[in-house]
Amino acid sequence: MKFTRFEVNGDLFQGVVEGEEIRVFSGDMFGDWSYTGDTYNKGDVKTLAPLQPKHVIGIGANFVANKQDLPETLPEIPVFFFKPSSSVIGPEEAIVIPSGTQQVKFESELAVVIGKEAKNVSEDAILDYVFGYTVGNDVTAPQFFHADGHWTVGKSFDTFTPLGPVIETELDPFNISIEANLNGVEKQNSPTDLMIVPIRKMISYLSNVMTLQPGDVILTGSPVGAELVNEGDIIECEINEIGKLKNSFVSAKQSVNS
Amino acid sequence: MKFTRFEVNGDLFQGVVEGEEIRVFSGDMFGDWSYTGDTYNKGDVKTLAPLQPKHVIGIGANFVANKQDLPETLPEIPVFFFKPSSSVIGPEEAIVIPSGTQQVKFESELAVVIGKEAKNVSEDAILDYVFGYTVGNDVTAPQFFHADGHWTVGKSFDTFTPLGPVIETELDPFNISIEANLNGVEKQNSPTDLMIVPIRKMISYLSNVMTLQPGDVILTGSPVGAELVNEGDIIECEINEIGKLKNSFVSAKQSVNS
Repeated sequence: MKFTRFEVNGDLFQGVVEGEEIRVFSGDMFGDWSYTGDTYNKGDVKTLAPLQPKHVIGIGANFVANKQDLPETLPEIPVFFFKPSSSVIGPEEAIVIPSGTQQVKFESELAVVIGKEAKNVSEDAILDYVFGYTVGNDVTAPQFFHADGHWTVGKSFDTFTPLGPVIETELDPFNISIEANLNGVEKQNSPTDLMIVPIRKMISYLSNVMTLQPGDVILTGSPVGAELVNEGDIIECEINEIGKLKNSFVSAKQSVNS
Repeated sequence: MKFTRFEVNGDLFQGVVEGEEIRVFSGDMFGDWSYTGDTYNKGDVKTLAPLQPKHVIGIGANFVANKQDLPETLPEIPVFFFKPSSSVIGPEEAIVIPSGTQQVKFESELAVVIGKEAKNVSEDAILDYVFGYTVGNDVTAPQFFHADGHWTVGKSFDTFTPLGPVIETELDPFNISIEANLNGVEKQNSPTDLMIVPIRKMISYLSNVMTLQPGDVILTGSPVGAELVNEGDIIECEINEIGKLKNSFVSAKQSVNS
């Protein structure tokens, strides 16, 4: 099923996409919900990010270009980072390049949506705690990385986490490609078996650190090919089985330094 | 006013502490609320963390030992980090030392609670967006820091962010001392003018990166004197005008590595 959130005349709805139709439901996407009987045509609504995440957790530098480049031993401590939920936007919204810089990076990613509380869960069982998958763009301003390796500021600006267009609950995450097209030119296109820390290991590890909760989103890393882009550029992050997450880049009018 | 959250026979309440009495209120602490008329005696309730934060944002290495050690120029990009809200616990709860290590650090801190949405707010105006202040313990397992400087795992374990005992809305943050006593022995005791990035600048800077929201908590850094501690140790973080945040350390039974 493809779960969506959308807006019509200022009102917010949740729904399930079936072809060109959206069937509205009410209730908790991760728990009890039921169809209201209302439907909308996909073309008549404004699609929002498919959820308001609780936490957004990213993993750094998690893809190689070719299978023979995969390391023999995995890093003991993966490079995880948090992005604030205030940075989340939906499809077609503008990504704002902060003042103090002209360029930011796009990073197309498979985003895992947690559906059940997960604490100390083994790799074998961890996918039972996943609700579904969406596409994420881990927008990054590396100019705001701290010299000592702290990425927080460069990852946290408002609009830096586009998510969408839907949460697909029936995806096989081991049989997809993660793509990005910049102004119509392909820049990223990698299958998930080029991940250094694989999906099950990544989520299981996290569940052994923190109790994962429904609505937590894990950005699983970006394929080789992410680039710095400019005002006016258009990025489409895509996983064929989920859909296309399209956003444009605009410049901020206000300075980051007060 | 001193805002509190507490539990009585499994039921959760919000209240305002007046002497030995707690006056129960219902509603949104940051918005509309009203007293229910019920009261409890402080001694008869279990005090919880005074809020469930939206984001917890910390700042690294933000104190000097003496005023003459303050740098003449501030860091261009402060070391900010996020802690997950799943790591928050209240007074008297146990801090769990993760498997794979025997020791963790305590870090007593002034915690700022945001009360109003704040975006691009100047240093002059930023304190108008602060709801109040509580005491935080930024528990840290530096053994889980990534060699390249990423602190996420070492800061994110469940129980690693004790907060409490109350949110004091009438505090003057420039006229307090931040203390920590380990097993009754003073380890930290510094006024806030030993902060490198001062409170107004820190919050204003953050508001220029991300839209701060009611319920966001900013841990403003820990005075010189934090130490590694062991199972069985008792830590009391204290700001006299707010109260004492007391927690004990216990060992995990389960491994962090699945």
